[in-house]
Amino acid sequence: MINKLPTGATIGILGGGQLGRMMALAAHRLGLNTHIFCPDPNSPAFDVTPLKTVAAYEDLSALKAFAQSVDCVTYEFENVPAETAAAIAETGTALFPSAKALEVSQERLVEKTFIQNAGVDVAPFAKVDSQEELEAAVAEIGLPAVLKTRRFGYDGKGQTILRDKADIATAFDTIGAQPAILEGFVPFNKEISVIIARDQKGATAAYDPAENVHKDHILYTSTVPGDIAPELAENAKSIATKLIEALDYVGVMGVEFFVVPSEGGDQLIVNEIAPRVHNSGHWTEAACLVDQFEQHIRAVAGWQLGKPVRHSDVVMQNLIGDEIDEGMNLTDSNVQVHHYGKTEIRAGRKMGHFNRILGPNRAQ
Amino acid sequence: MINKLPTGATIGILGGGQLGRMMALAAHRLGLNTHIFCPDPNSPAFDVTPLKTVAAYEDLSALKAFAQSVDCVTYEFENVPAETAAAIAETGTALFPSAKALEVSQERLVEKTFIQNAGVDVAPFAKVDSQEELEAAVAEIGLPAVLKTRRFGYDGKGQTILRDKADIATAFDTIGAQPAILEGFVPFNKEISVIIARDQKGATAAYDPAENVHKDHILYTSTVPGDIAPELAENAKSIATKLIEALDYVGVMGVEFFVVPSEGGDQLIVNEIAPRVHNSGHWTEAACLVDQFEQHIRAVAGWQLGKPVRHSDVVMQNLIGDEIDEGMNLTDSNVQVHHYGKTEIRAGRKMGHFNRILGPNRAQ
Repeated sequence: MINKLPTGATIGILGGGQLGRMMALAAHRLGLNTHIFCPDPNSPAFDVTPLKTVAAYEDLSALKAFAQSVDCVTYEFENVPAETAAAIAETGTALFPSAKALEVSQERLVEKTFIQNAGVDVAPFAKVDSQEELEAAVAEIGLPAVLKTRRFGYDGKGQTILRDKADIATAFDTIGAQPAILEGFVPFNKEISVIIARDQKGATAAYDPAENVHKDHILYTSTVPGDIAPELAENAKSIATKLIEALDYVGVMGVEFFVVPSEGGDQLIVNEIAPRVHNSGHWTEAACLVDQFEQHIRAVAGWQLGKPVRHSDVVMQNLIGDEIDEGMNLTDSNVQVHHYGKTEIRAGRKMGHFNRILGPNRAQ
Repeated sequence: MINKLPTGATIGILGGGQLGRMMALAAHRLGLNTHIFCPDPNSPAFDVTPLKTVAAYEDLSALKAFAQSVDCVTYEFENVPAETAAAIAETGTALFPSAKALEVSQERLVEKTFIQNAGVDVAPFAKVDSQEELEAAVAEIGLPAVLKTRRFGYDGKGQTILRDKADIATAFDTIGAQPAILEGFVPFNKEISVIIARDQKGATAAYDPAENVHKDHILYTSTVPGDIAPELAENAKSIATKLIEALDYVGVMGVEFFVVPSEGGDQLIVNEIAPRVHNSGHWTEAACLVDQFEQHIRAVAGWQLGKPVRHSDVVMQNLIGDEIDEGMNLTDSNVQVHHYGKTEIRAGRKMGHFNRILGPNRAQ
């Protein structure tokens, strides 16, 4: 059932970071209101909306009151607890993307299995719940390989690389002897990502892939178009479409790929999916008329998607830690800056970003 | 003295309509907070910020508390009472644009005199405070002419056209026998406007002129570039620069011109100046990396201006009354829509607008 929200309806957002903040700004441009739920009283998203709830995600009575006061609920992060999603479902208020998208993206074994079952290439993987299973997995997959916790890993945390046999003895303890997954090492030469949206009628809209560069395990730049063949870019969009349809998903999703050189040409391996607006999609703000944040709000509000047309070539660069000061002083004629309103600068903290327009999109 | 506001500083905004709302959204993209002051408890701008004061502009104690709680004050409308500006000045909090800009733009006689003294062409005008002065003014200026109240006129209200001698007897009563100004009728064939910004160091940035079309005395479309010669466009920007400098102005200002055909080529006559972001500048949202709202916030916050570069040709169309429903369903690949969040649709009410990109700006 499609519930097209009218002007003045309220989107509930779980999470008060920069992604929630930018979703709220997009909702406001469309005449929709927002209510932000976040345990951190200093959440940057609280500064852009009159409606907020400061409570833990496990505070089910606060969650239910929140869900009942809004017209639909969405979220800015994939680690929304299952109990939180269930509590919202009990109120009858729609949750977009659905609890299924959370289940799949929260647990690497479920995620890889889902992607493989959708007929999409992933790195070879095996479940590791013990030292014995790790040894069996290495025997199957070979080295080098990466051992990752199955839950709540991000920005390179909760994982370790096994380069030779000596690493087998310590790797499982290194990641805390938690439920894990061993992934075969993929000799990729690039990482790209596709931001894709799906509305409540099932229509999809994929933006052009961005080529991503990381620094200290944190996204640093996203460049569009990336240095990849046009057919590979189309292929990445097709894979993202296949995955978002297999999930019966509503909203914006990020799909990260490794580009693996091979004799028959570059191959794509899906690294992971993120059930939310994505840092590697911030370039859409400056290079598209409808950006990923508006697209997400359109989808969860039951509206039609905008067209994912890109008018310009662009590079997005994150402003991390004290880079923010220099970044905000950029007034080049081809630069647009965005500050997340975080007053405390910390090393490694995403404080803002800027988009630099490189020229018109000549592939249009 | 330039006071560059840091992230997390708060911009106070007088007026809670769509212009205040869009200024707030721009401030939020720059990491600044906003506090909206408006007497109407249903102000659309209240839905996008946690800080609001609902009070009359004449409530000087509420005004002072507001001014003391913010880092600078700006406004979305030119009819801010002089007492309101004075009360803010008393607190020591900066007001941008200054009280002088309000004085000049609130009173047509002061405005025309200021423009003329700046060496810029205006329609012939004369003060009219009585029936006798009206008769003298007609004798001087001739007919046809327009009699306008000197204060608080907008969207065609408070004015009447005198076409022949029979109108002289009734015109002054028609506008309520208020302090008035008689303006010679200007045989213009187009109306254009320039949106210009000036920062606290005195740097200026003028956007390309828009050609404006009105419907029922309300702005309907703004097209950029307009159908005018490039030299005329440059001339309009130069005049706007001259005026903003003569006012020692900080912020964004709109300057409306009549284009008057003459034997030596088209001439420009300034119609009026608006000391605020302007409806005919909404096209900057879609066609520039730094739009008029961000430019205004940059200026009042003591920051450097962005470059007023236009990457695309564009037409902005207002969505008036029930046009909003159809407008919000536009998902053409070259269209960006903006809804002001007003839930009550009324005839003649500005509910939103959209920008249609016509193609790249080939004049760059």
